[in-house]
Amino acid sequence: MDAPLKTFLEECPSLGLLRFIVTNDTAVLEARGFFEGLFFVPHLPHYANLHSEHFEFHLNMAEVGLVRFEELPSKRGNFTTYTVRFLKADGEKPSLSLFLQWDKPGEYAEGQVDAFVALREKYGETWIPQPTPAPTTAVAH
Amino acid sequence: MDAPLKTFLEECPSLGLLRFIVTNDTAVLEARGFFEGLFFVPHLPHYANLHSEHFEFHLNMAEVGLVRFEELPSKRGNFTTYTVRFLKADGEKPSLSLFLQWDKPGEYAEGQVDAFVALREKYGETWIPQPTPAPTTAVAH
Repeated sequence: MDAPLKTFLEECPSLGLLRFIVTNDTAVLEARGFFEGLFFVPHLPHYANLHSEHFEFHLNMAEVGLVRFEELPSKRGNFTTYTVRFLKADGEKPSLSLFLQWDKPGEYAEGQVDAFVALREKYGETWIPQPTPAPTTAVAH
Repeated sequence: MDAPLKTFLEECPSLGLLRFIVTNDTAVLEARGFFEGLFFVPHLPHYANLHSEHFEFHLNMAEVGLVRFEELPSKRGNFTTYTVRFLKADGEKPSLSLFLQWDKPGEYAEGQVDAFVALREKYGETWIPQPTPAPTTAVAH
């Protein structure tokens, strides 16, 4: 699928309730929410942004070189987890992970797993998006 | 103040509504919530954990070498922000940041800034906690 990351992100609302996870080597933050309200701002066109009442996220698309769909047995029990990972490159730790959020373990909302499978079929299990150009000036976080 | 990080974390509920921020070099995740429900588990004693309805966080205390209190003009307007930063060491990027969450810009809940100032006076503007021992076996995230 030859498309920029932005195109993929615009399809993520179909995944329903998600668990967003951002981690560094010391801390892990996880937020539950829908992928709704995605927006972009002109002076930082390489950033995807999402604000909601309880959480917000920002993703530097210029640093995402790979998107991977993972369907794996849960570490905590006898059910399956569905995750979209955003990485710099293969072999790197995920910069952002989106888990389909279950209600009871293994119980997903209707259509949620179908949406995951549909996106995986469309983009492929491992997808390399078109590069997102970064502005030439450095940006402070 | 000669104390382990755990002692400080147990005082953080006094800060009221917070904005938790975890970032790596690609993604930023921010969640609004109270520092309530802190817990520890026996098999990962160096991790501080917090679960709530909308978010959860995990902090590897063995990787936190410095806590800093920052009182700074907001980047977005004419008011003051109050932040507790958790870093590996001076000069490193924060692994976790806790911003006092305002309602309208600059409007904090009663007692919130006082609690921040009290903690800063007790621990010092830059505080080095007692080292947290890490188990000898590696832990996968």
